[in-house]
Amino acid sequence: MGELFDPLFGMDAVAAATGDRAWLAALCETETALARACARVGLIDAPVALEIAAACEEAAAGDLAELGRRAVAGGNPVIPLVDELRDRVAKRAGEDASAAVHLGATSQDVLDTASMLITRRALDVLLPDLAACADACADLARTHRDTPMAGRTLLQLAAPTTFGALAAGWGSALDRGRARLSELRSTLPVQLGGAVGTLSVLHPNGLDVLAAFAEELGLAAPAAPWHTDRTTITELAGALGTSAAAVAKVAGDLVMLAQSEIAEVQEARPGGSSAMAHKQNPIAAITARAAAAQAPGLVATVFAAAAPELQRGAGPWHAEWPALTGLLRATGGAAARLRDSLTGLRVDAAAMASNLAALGDGSGTGHSGEFVDRYLAGRRT
Amino acid sequence: MGELFDPLFGMDAVAAATGDRAWLAALCETETALARACARVGLIDAPVALEIAAACEEAAAGDLAELGRRAVAGGNPVIPLVDELRDRVAKRAGEDASAAVHLGATSQDVLDTASMLITRRALDVLLPDLAACADACADLARTHRDTPMAGRTLLQLAAPTTFGALAAGWGSALDRGRARLSELRSTLPVQLGGAVGTLSVLHPNGLDVLAAFAEELGLAAPAAPWHTDRTTITELAGALGTSAAAVAKVAGDLVMLAQSEIAEVQEARPGGSSAMAHKQNPIAAITARAAAAQAPGLVATVFAAAAPELQRGAGPWHAEWPALTGLLRATGGAAARLRDSLTGLRVDAAAMASNLAALGDGSGTGHSGEFVDRYLAGRRT
Amino acid sequence: MGELFDPLFGMDAVAAATGDRAWLAALCETETALARACARVGLIDAPVALEIAAACEEAAAGDLAELGRRAVAGGNPVIPLVDELRDRVAKRAGEDASAAVHLGATSQDVLDTASMLITRRALDVLLPDLAACADACADLARTHRDTPMAGRTLLQLAAPTTFGALAAGWGSALDRGRARLSELRSTLPVQLGGAVGTLSVLHPNGLDVLAAFAEELGLAAPAAPWHTDRTTITELAGALGTSAAAVAKVAGDLVMLAQSEIAEVQEARPGGSSAMAHKQNPIAAITARAAAAQAPGLVATVFAAAAPELQRGAGPWHAEWPALTGLLRATGGAAARLRDSLTGLRVDAAAMASNLAALGDGSGTGHSGEFVDRYLAGRRT
Amino acid sequence: MGELFDPLFGMDAVAAATGDRAWLAALCETETALARACARVGLIDAPVALEIAAACEEAAAGDLAELGRRAVAGGNPVIPLVDELRDRVAKRAGEDASAAVHLGATSQDVLDTASMLITRRALDVLLPDLAACADACADLARTHRDTPMAGRTLLQLAAPTTFGALAAGWGSALDRGRARLSELRSTLPVQLGGAVGTLSVLHPNGLDVLAAFAEELGLAAPAAPWHTDRTTITELAGALGTSAAAVAKVAGDLVMLAQSEIAEVQEARPGGSSAMAHKQNPIAAITARAAAAQAPGLVATVFAAAAPELQRGAGPWHAEWPALTGLLRATGGAAARLRDSLTGLRVDAAAMASNLAALGDGSGTGHSGEFVDRYLAGRRT
Repeated sequence: MGELFDPLFGMDAVAAATGDRAWLAALCETETALARACARVGLIDAPVALEIAAACEEAAAGDLAELGRRAVAGGNPVIPLVDELRDRVAKRAGEDASAAVHLGATSQDVLDTASMLITRRALDVLLPDLAACADACADLARTHRDTPMAGRTLLQLAAPTTFGALAAGWGSALDRGRARLSELRSTLPVQLGGAVGTLSVLHPNGLDVLAAFAEELGLAAPAAPWHTDRTTITELAGALGTSAAAVAKVAGDLVMLAQSEIAEVQEARPGGSSAMAHKQNPIAAITARAAAAQAPGLVATVFAAAAPELQRGAGPWHAEWPALTGLLRATGGAAARLRDSLTGLRVDAAAMASNLAALGDGSGTGHSGEFVDRYLAGRRT
Repeated sequence: MGELFDPLFGMDAVAAATGDRAWLAALCETETALARACARVGLIDAPVALEIAAACEEAAAGDLAELGRRAVAGGNPVIPLVDELRDRVAKRAGEDASAAVHLGATSQDVLDTASMLITRRALDVLLPDLAACADACADLARTHRDTPMAGRTLLQLAAPTTFGALAAGWGSALDRGRARLSELRSTLPVQLGGAVGTLSVLHPNGLDVLAAFAEELGLAAPAAPWHTDRTTITELAGALGTSAAAVAKVAGDLVMLAQSEIAEVQEARPGGSSAMAHKQNPIAAITARAAAAQAPGLVATVFAAAAPELQRGAGPWHAEWPALTGLLRATGGAAARLRDSLTGLRVDAAAMASNLAALGDGSGTGHSGEFVDRYLAGRRT
Repeated sequence: MGELFDPLFGMDAVAAATGDRAWLAALCETETALARACARVGLIDAPVALEIAAACEEAAAGDLAELGRRAVAGGNPVIPLVDELRDRVAKRAGEDASAAVHLGATSQDVLDTASMLITRRALDVLLPDLAACADACADLARTHRDTPMAGRTLLQLAAPTTFGALAAGWGSALDRGRARLSELRSTLPVQLGGAVGTLSVLHPNGLDVLAAFAEELGLAAPAAPWHTDRTTITELAGALGTSAAAVAKVAGDLVMLAQSEIAEVQEARPGGSSAMAHKQNPIAAITARAAAAQAPGLVATVFAAAAPELQRGAGPWHAEWPALTGLLRATGGAAARLRDSLTGLRVDAAAMASNLAALGDGSGTGHSGEFVDRYLAGRRT
Repeated sequence: MGELFDPLFGMDAVAAATGDRAWLAALCETETALARACARVGLIDAPVALEIAAACEEAAAGDLAELGRRAVAGGNPVIPLVDELRDRVAKRAGEDASAAVHLGATSQDVLDTASMLITRRALDVLLPDLAACADACADLARTHRDTPMAGRTLLQLAAPTTFGALAAGWGSALDRGRARLSELRSTLPVQLGGAVGTLSVLHPNGLDVLAAFAEELGLAAPAAPWHTDRTTITELAGALGTSAAAVAKVAGDLVMLAQSEIAEVQEARPGGSSAMAHKQNPIAAITARAAAAQAPGLVATVFAAAAPELQRGAGPWHAEWPALTGLLRATGGAAARLRDSLTGLRVDAAAMASNLAALGDGSGTGHSGEFVDRYLAGRRT
């Protein structure tokens, strides 16, 4: 939503990683990598590739609004960017050199590949936050392995458990979320297929260019172009949704446990109110929930867009860009705010004991300690 | 998504109406209106209200990023804005005057009321675009009342109809969408309830302040605060979703009719390609579809957030802001791009006749002309 | 989900109104009405219409599974139903008479019209439940107009309010939800357009048949066929989503107020547990929330399906059936369970007073009583 | 939607696997497995476990409607089922034996474990259909490795490709979808935690019972109870959504290629119409799209429910049941109908050649053959 609202949703860092300037940089980086790949395969001269790289570097600092206006006519920013790059290269190295820009590629190649770069950058912001959240939960589980508290089912006092067992469940979900995202991060692929996915312009060197292009960007080289197979995007969306849900669970529980009537946890820096001076709102957890609440609808949007028509979707493809970007921001924001909430969290074991006493159930905490141990042991492997 | 992508999704105008600066302006306008309302009721002195208004005008031009950073602690931008306004008023008119800022209100009052102002502004961008689309459809229906074409069901050639009948169906849906949005626009309410919705600080003058506050902003005065009743928001979301769907239907049909193999319509300014010079992509319709495709998931997000806990939701309330903003942008963008698509649309009656001839069905076009007449007559009432 | 789960989600009555047998009945009722309408206009003989009506009555009691199997080939149950009706009529009154079955109509006409009948029946189950919920809230608001309780914002104790004010907010949302549904119920239209919406087979009598058809069924006669304009369906979906959200808000608050640590309300018949004998779970409110939670995703599905291709969608049209049916059930189930929750609800004013005392805020309840009065007065008009 | 509509959406087999009777069987199988596990660990006598198993077998054939009615009071069917099982065991083997029923477990343990059994059964219906679809695509890719066709981007004729390359992209997405589902299928875990997840009643034998319980059912034994960690469910939902999207892509393309104006493919048994005898509707693909279109909204519902409060959600948990069931049916139905569509699909290479000739682009099909080879080679590993 911009600089007025992004910070409170924890989205400022991930918004920077996925913003206009980052997209332009990713588009330019992709064109540079393509030129280098073509040079390595011998399709263009090395000095021309250097000129293209220089032009890309200039273009990456260009006027976003102007490029945005010029993107309207063709429906994507790659078309005017390629025009601009060709102009720049022509000025630097002559008309002939300009033909080497964007060689054999189509807009979707550049946009899809750039979206993988954007995803990687966003995950590099998001995953450390998720890891910090998970580590904080592991610390809570360890510290409070044997801290008894009342378990609440259907929001009614139920039977004794430990705060450690609850925190272990939180951490377990967060770990599963980030394990999947890490796995997907390590296999993010380039896309390169040319007009309809045959790489005909680069034939018979297309497979070599594809491999070199992937190496240049540190992305995976797919067996074949995936312009029509959007499972790369849907698996990302599903994994982001799982991580957002894992965050929402922890944040929701923190909000519940911080209720005035329960008061078993308190954030280190609770929020105030414009009307009530005494309020101690667990505002980081609250805004983590709000950020995470954006995710399910965005996941649905990505999934609904995942059946583009034939060789390139007439709308579905374009619909992915804001939805995937929004999903990275929602999940990233949620993780960042949950990290804030968990950092320095005050756990009031005495309040837990007191609330448990009200339940009057002396049945003990069973295997909760062993479950914590198993969870912690599972993290070390 | 920012200035690089917003224009191609038609979202630039509506993004400006719903962006950070617009939100800050709306928040400031709300605080000004509250001060004026309190002055009219005699709770604060008129000169103090003028100072508050002046402070609000200054604040509206303030540093968004700085305010955004200060919004993190309390989870909304109203808290630091009120602090800032009090400082400004204290400097202008003394400590005592500063107490008149935000009198009797809570953050939610200001944010919810500002969201109604934002909605009104966005609708004032969106509704003319929707109206232009509907008018264009009406023109097409009138012009092509008797232009025969092949009807296609399940994407198979089926039986004769007219382009006028198809266009009438498009216009009918667009008219219904905007009728509902116009109705809701005219009843957008202020929110004013104080800390928990009792207006206790303003008691016994709260009802008078509420009425005056609404008058100041030209919004409706609700019978009671609606901080806990989010049907105002869900009805808006539903209506925006309907309008987005109406746009998606027209845009989708235009994309189908513009297919190379059908070629019955063509946009006035079709888009090119970075790889294929001959392409005549109906890019305005394509990007209208993409913008509209964001809507269903955002509607779901708004609906899922519409059950905030007790007197103010601990997450659900905050979750509304980006979702409603996103929905205004998606619907507005879709309408703007469809307007582009319909403006100057080339209808190839000969191609329609030729495709119809291939069907070889001489059963005629039945009541299609009368249906067009009825639709046009309905618009005039 | 069937008879094992439907009752606990409150969906049994609405499932019966929207189930297979009800759908078959509605399809048959539609064919009967069409035959009668054609007879009134003079297109078929009155005795033939009577034979068709008799055949429809027989068919309505037919084998659902068999018809379901025969529906696969054409993708909808109307095709085999019409075959069956023609066979039945041929046996009763000869081959010639059988040609009068389904005269001038297409499958979509019958299915869309039947879906309006199903919707009306479901609303006739749902609206009384919603009304009972709203009335119960009004009773609570009246009874507890001056019962003080602690207001809670962001789930923190905030400032004094009254239970009456909270209940008034609940009722206000429920009333708004059902007002909209009632409005839409009264304008549910028949669909009749023939193969592609021109009523060519019935020409020049199509408009008369359309009017008579609507009269027969007590549905509205649209100006033109709406096979391509799905705003009738999206407005219903939006309105159902709003009502589901209104229910979810009340149910969520009841769950919160019934928490062991708050204990300000208790259901008349709280639920037990298979493991804990002491549990007093507000199970009606809990399952109302669960039913309502199905709604946002289903609304999104309906909206995403609302752009069918050209004269009949190749998938989007069919996708509406389960989604709209599911949405009627979700909203109906939620309303039924909330009604159970509110019926005989025990409100513990002493607990409210005690929790309020813990807040230690003597600022009073301001205009809460007047807000209740305004809400109640608004209901009478 | 029941036996009238399920077959046409391909959902009959998967509906049987996930229906009421299947759920009751799964609940009973779970209680049997628990008793056996307790017997293996020595907590109950072996003959008692046999009696419980016999009672479960009887109960599995019981009256669904009656159990459904009795499930209302506690909000789930496990509570009355356990009552019934205890009654049956008491009659068979005395009061004391009846105490061995449901030993140490809570309703959620039985319901969550049963949902894993239901998921496994549904996947055992769904995965063979997905595999058949993928194999059919692989066959098409192999057969049409070098069949030239016009590639279409943004639904405009673009450049040459091959039908094999298109089919390879379809198969690639289907393979990825089922690989993920197969992976998740093989790790579906039991849930066993007792009232709040500590297994206190079974202490100190809980871990042994957990392991034996998992063995009895052939499910995985989790490190700790996952009653509060719903990532098991969200990962399933995400994977089902991906498979549904993969199906939707193929089905959508088949519908496009079967358009009258393109006519490059035709289903073996196209559907007819109630109004137009000449129609050749690709009805299996159409209804596959419709079934798949239910998925994104249901995925969103599952994700939104994945943050249950504390030790058991007061609504979110219950909301999972219909949403996950619906998602299994939607995905399973889509796969079944796509299988029908692909079985015996007629590919008209001459029509492809003719449409390609209209494009007039002699640039060749580049690396399309190698991409097909790589895809096929990847399947063999």
